[in-house]
Amino acid sequence: MIKLGMIGAGRIGRLHGDNIARFIKGAKLEAISDPYLTDDAKQWAADLGVTKVYKEADEIFNDPEIDAVLICSSTDTHSKYLMEAAKAKKHIFCEKPIDLDIARIKEAIKAADDADVKLMVGFVRRFDRDHKGVAQVVKSGQLGKPHLIKITSRDPEPPPLEYVKVSGGIFTDMMIHDFDMARFLAGSEVTEVTAIGQICITPGIAQYDDVDTAIVSLKFENGAIGVIDNSRAARYGYDQRVEVHCDKGAVLDENNLENHIKISTKDGVEIAKPTWFFLQRYNDAFVAEVQDFVDALVNDTQMPVGGIDGLMSVYIAQAAKISLDEKRTVLISELTE
Amino acid sequence: MIKLGMIGAGRIGRLHGDNIARFIKGAKLEAISDPYLTDDAKQWAADLGVTKVYKEADEIFNDPEIDAVLICSSTDTHSKYLMEAAKAKKHIFCEKPIDLDIARIKEAIKAADDADVKLMVGFVRRFDRDHKGVAQVVKSGQLGKPHLIKITSRDPEPPPLEYVKVSGGIFTDMMIHDFDMARFLAGSEVTEVTAIGQICITPGIAQYDDVDTAIVSLKFENGAIGVIDNSRAARYGYDQRVEVHCDKGAVLDENNLENHIKISTKDGVEIAKPTWFFLQRYNDAFVAEVQDFVDALVNDTQMPVGGIDGLMSVYIAQAAKISLDEKRTVLISELTE
Amino acid sequence: MIKLGMIGAGRIGRLHGDNIARFIKGAKLEAISDPYLTDDAKQWAADLGVTKVYKEADEIFNDPEIDAVLICSSTDTHSKYLMEAAKAKKHIFCEKPIDLDIARIKEAIKAADDADVKLMVGFVRRFDRDHKGVAQVVKSGQLGKPHLIKITSRDPEPPPLEYVKVSGGIFTDMMIHDFDMARFLAGSEVTEVTAIGQICITPGIAQYDDVDTAIVSLKFENGAIGVIDNSRAARYGYDQRVEVHCDKGAVLDENNLENHIKISTKDGVEIAKPTWFFLQRYNDAFVAEVQDFVDALVNDTQMPVGGIDGLMSVYIAQAAKISLDEKRTVLISELTE
Amino acid sequence: MIKLGMIGAGRIGRLHGDNIARFIKGAKLEAISDPYLTDDAKQWAADLGVTKVYKEADEIFNDPEIDAVLICSSTDTHSKYLMEAAKAKKHIFCEKPIDLDIARIKEAIKAADDADVKLMVGFVRRFDRDHKGVAQVVKSGQLGKPHLIKITSRDPEPPPLEYVKVSGGIFTDMMIHDFDMARFLAGSEVTEVTAIGQICITPGIAQYDDVDTAIVSLKFENGAIGVIDNSRAARYGYDQRVEVHCDKGAVLDENNLENHIKISTKDGVEIAKPTWFFLQRYNDAFVAEVQDFVDALVNDTQMPVGGIDGLMSVYIAQAAKISLDEKRTVLISELTE
Repeated sequence: MIKLGMIGAGRIGRLHGDNIARFIKGAKLEAISDPYLTDDAKQWAADLGVTKVYKEADEIFNDPEIDAVLICSSTDTHSKYLMEAAKAKKHIFCEKPIDLDIARIKEAIKAADDADVKLMVGFVRRFDRDHKGVAQVVKSGQLGKPHLIKITSRDPEPPPLEYVKVSGGIFTDMMIHDFDMARFLAGSEVTEVTAIGQICITPGIAQYDDVDTAIVSLKFENGAIGVIDNSRAARYGYDQRVEVHCDKGAVLDENNLENHIKISTKDGVEIAKPTWFFLQRYNDAFVAEVQDFVDALVNDTQMPVGGIDGLMSVYIAQAAKISLDEKRTVLISELTE
Repeated sequence: MIKLGMIGAGRIGRLHGDNIARFIKGAKLEAISDPYLTDDAKQWAADLGVTKVYKEADEIFNDPEIDAVLICSSTDTHSKYLMEAAKAKKHIFCEKPIDLDIARIKEAIKAADDADVKLMVGFVRRFDRDHKGVAQVVKSGQLGKPHLIKITSRDPEPPPLEYVKVSGGIFTDMMIHDFDMARFLAGSEVTEVTAIGQICITPGIAQYDDVDTAIVSLKFENGAIGVIDNSRAARYGYDQRVEVHCDKGAVLDENNLENHIKISTKDGVEIAKPTWFFLQRYNDAFVAEVQDFVDALVNDTQMPVGGIDGLMSVYIAQAAKISLDEKRTVLISELTE
Repeated sequence: MIKLGMIGAGRIGRLHGDNIARFIKGAKLEAISDPYLTDDAKQWAADLGVTKVYKEADEIFNDPEIDAVLICSSTDTHSKYLMEAAKAKKHIFCEKPIDLDIARIKEAIKAADDADVKLMVGFVRRFDRDHKGVAQVVKSGQLGKPHLIKITSRDPEPPPLEYVKVSGGIFTDMMIHDFDMARFLAGSEVTEVTAIGQICITPGIAQYDDVDTAIVSLKFENGAIGVIDNSRAARYGYDQRVEVHCDKGAVLDENNLENHIKISTKDGVEIAKPTWFFLQRYNDAFVAEVQDFVDALVNDTQMPVGGIDGLMSVYIAQAAKISLDEKRTVLISELTE
Repeated sequence: MIKLGMIGAGRIGRLHGDNIARFIKGAKLEAISDPYLTDDAKQWAADLGVTKVYKEADEIFNDPEIDAVLICSSTDTHSKYLMEAAKAKKHIFCEKPIDLDIARIKEAIKAADDADVKLMVGFVRRFDRDHKGVAQVVKSGQLGKPHLIKITSRDPEPPPLEYVKVSGGIFTDMMIHDFDMARFLAGSEVTEVTAIGQICITPGIAQYDDVDTAIVSLKFENGAIGVIDNSRAARYGYDQRVEVHCDKGAVLDENNLENHIKISTKDGVEIAKPTWFFLQRYNDAFVAEVQDFVDALVNDTQMPVGGIDGLMSVYIAQAAKISLDEKRTVLISELTE
């Protein structure tokens, strides 16, 4: 039985905590830490039967009973906690992104490597039944070599301006999931990035040098090309679809819908909308993700998403921003070399 | 916090038990009883933190801490436990059917009424998101009066002959769910039943005077008509669809699929099959069902499915068998009067 | 080049005439006759380049240049013209039904047989791409033996009362198409018929001893069972779907839609309605039907739909009416023996 | 009755000719010319009842009875015939592209303007029921301002190398249809073009400086952005889909399928492929296109697709090639100014 400590008991932390209590086999949540330990958080921990409840993450790092930690704190603390956890010889599940700074990401990955602890980055979409199924079809080779990857990813409603201000921009905050998905589906590294973008939804974000609608084209090492479109406001729900066109055909997935009901009248035919947002769409994927993390610990196998995945997606995001600004294709090698 | 006792810790009991532990708000599982209390069942109870583990249901009935019971034992014991629970003043959730004998069903319902305890019968499909949604559209009146109800219900694979032998026949064992669904969708009582059937799948069931493929037509008090088709072997999964055609149009639901992936090649386009069987399809409905039971206790409101529903569905099943045998329409009033 | 004469230049006749001019290979329309030869009909014939335009069908029968006739006149004249055409040694395409009277149908079929002319009855739905495709999958045997045939057939709007009055009733007028489809899909003759019906849409039809909503269950010689539902008013278009469940799985078709457009907003997702009525849905089938007739003449092969098909569908319709009235299953053998 | 002359009786010319004979109201085909007047072409003209059959287009231009011409000859002769037709005061339907050379296109458009004859360019996809329906939803304003246009366009099988050699490259030969569609859907002119491409299918096309898989991103004057993906080999049929995401939601169309049949077994569920290629998919659009041309002549209204549309799509195609070569965003103004 793997004993887990959780750093950060906010929305995503509690989501994982509830999932661990309900569904995860082979692990239990033993401790939580949160600097703003609210009464609400304490109650939540008590309800789950977690008795080790701390303000300081250190207490978790110093607890010899804890095998692994889940870093669910705010983004700007991820790399710091990651390095401290590594030093404490705890295996690590870290919510994405590790950091927005390439040097910090590299340092964090190195810390985990040096400490010989396992590190998984939380790109939850890889664990979605449909996206994973598409990736498996591609990987199986049944359709031959991939030629073209297409990813549609739209949030239902735009975030508040305050969020955009500190988000790091659409590529790092939102499309980073799609960059990881693109690498996952292509089974290959991105080599070139070409971006265009526009402010269509929230005029106010101009002041933060950001866009809310964007298209990014990619080239991959294996010869495939790809394209991602992002919008901050689909309005009709969470539009999450992927397509891979290969030598012998194509595999794609369609949106998960709120229900399977169809109403037909002389005025038209109505069907359900896509599920509203990531908590609905990736509900089961959050469980599968942590189960895979635990299984990799139990079986001492490779993590399904590693530090390199956290690093590469940030490189691509940075290249996209440069491309957007300079109106040219940016080679990933410009950043890595 | 409602304290629940569970009578019978077999497959369906454990399903409810796990759901209560994971999802149900406002209630906890306090005790279980099972005459064949296996080590496996004991371990399961221990894992859930249930400490009151008995062989005899009496111990639950006699426990003043228990507010309500879930009768999940074998079908032939339902009415007995129901009456004992009523006598002990416990509210009752009873898996369907209450009994196969009309007199016993009436007696059981009367026992609950006399004891002034609430009684819910476990017709789980009413709590399925899609079927429930269809029923809500009908009930809303937005499409006008219902004209025609259609229900398709096919199991993926035929049951073993030993099961068929004691099942009570396709109408009582399998189509009973659809009879309840028909009443639920029509919002009206069935008045006439006309059945045809055939042995298409399992020749051996002829010895048990049963069929494996059947079509039953219905008339309802409100003027609607309906039809149900059942097959013991769809082969491609669990085919569960309903349609209601009304004055101004129709509402229907389509099968839940295993995923939303589409593979296109020159040889054709492949999509996913329906989910395999009731544990997959009605997974969430099992949770919603018990939550509604608990909510009705907490709020002291009417049970969403009552004893009358358990009774009427058996009447219809019996009428269907007579119709099949006598090749004529059978009035429900022939049985009730 | 087969030379065709057309008896009756009303809606359906002109439809066939236009199709022959535009699409049919190996035949041309040489003559038309219509007792009410309107200026409009004359103009239509002139536009098509048909120079032999008569009031009397006799002139067509007596024309040695005519190889075959299409009987598109009013229903009550079908059998009369059919027998006259047979006598004149013309091959015959006859719109359905041949007659509403069994004896007349038999006489007409015998006339064609005796004259050794080919006879095809216009059950156009057999030539619909989708229904035909379903029948071919069943016939191929890839799914094993058929168990259950389901046919949904609903008109968009109810006909006027005057139409109902002379229509012969829902089974003979409307469901007759579905009876033929059922035989076509099952690849077997119907042996038993069980009907229920209701007046849901047009109260006034009660005076004509008719219903507007009906469900008919069928048994077939090959052991399959089936069910057809009809409604005179779907409201959302022409609902035309068939399903065949077999040993190894099922094959079905979905409605043809007006377009493939999907509009998604926060208020819901809208898709297109089914095509409006038979002129839209069976547009291409009308062409394929006549082409198959012509091909069978050119190649001297068997007609795809014969007199027996015209006869059996009327038997089933009559059995359905008796079943509806007597609330019992009716054997086809009760009528044929 | 508009009298039409057709220049070029190859595949596309005969398609239009057959459509005119069968479907087009208000016009008739009076003359054809083709320098390689084969016996086959002569027979085709005779079957259609066209008696004026020439080798030289001049004979059509000099015929005072001819109101308008359809230029269906080889691409390299379009602009020449267009200018000659204009000089002869004939209205003009010209298959796309007018020319591959911008100066020639401008000269041809000017010739038509100067002669005060109407000019329509044959971008047939604008007349597809589904694409047109999507454009109408956008234009109606019901979804608000367009943000993002997506076009998927894949041919089923790659063309022969000899074809590629003279095709002008994927942007001018194939994606030109999508550039026009993008302008049509956005209701706005393209201002910036960014292309990436790859050789995934036919290695031999490298020698012709072409690619077979390409993604082109667009910016529009009205603030929308867009993306087109093209592949020369989808394998599963003709993949033709458009999406427009707007302020209040999205409108898209799905592929036309070969049929609506679904086969379900334990091995999976099979549905139909998209229609095979443009002759199937755009069959009805070819009719609608010429009817609209004729209607604009009859009613003396503006042509639905004008010379400017022929010009702008070539500008975008040229910008795409420069972008591909120079790995940068190209402004349309770089070419027009």
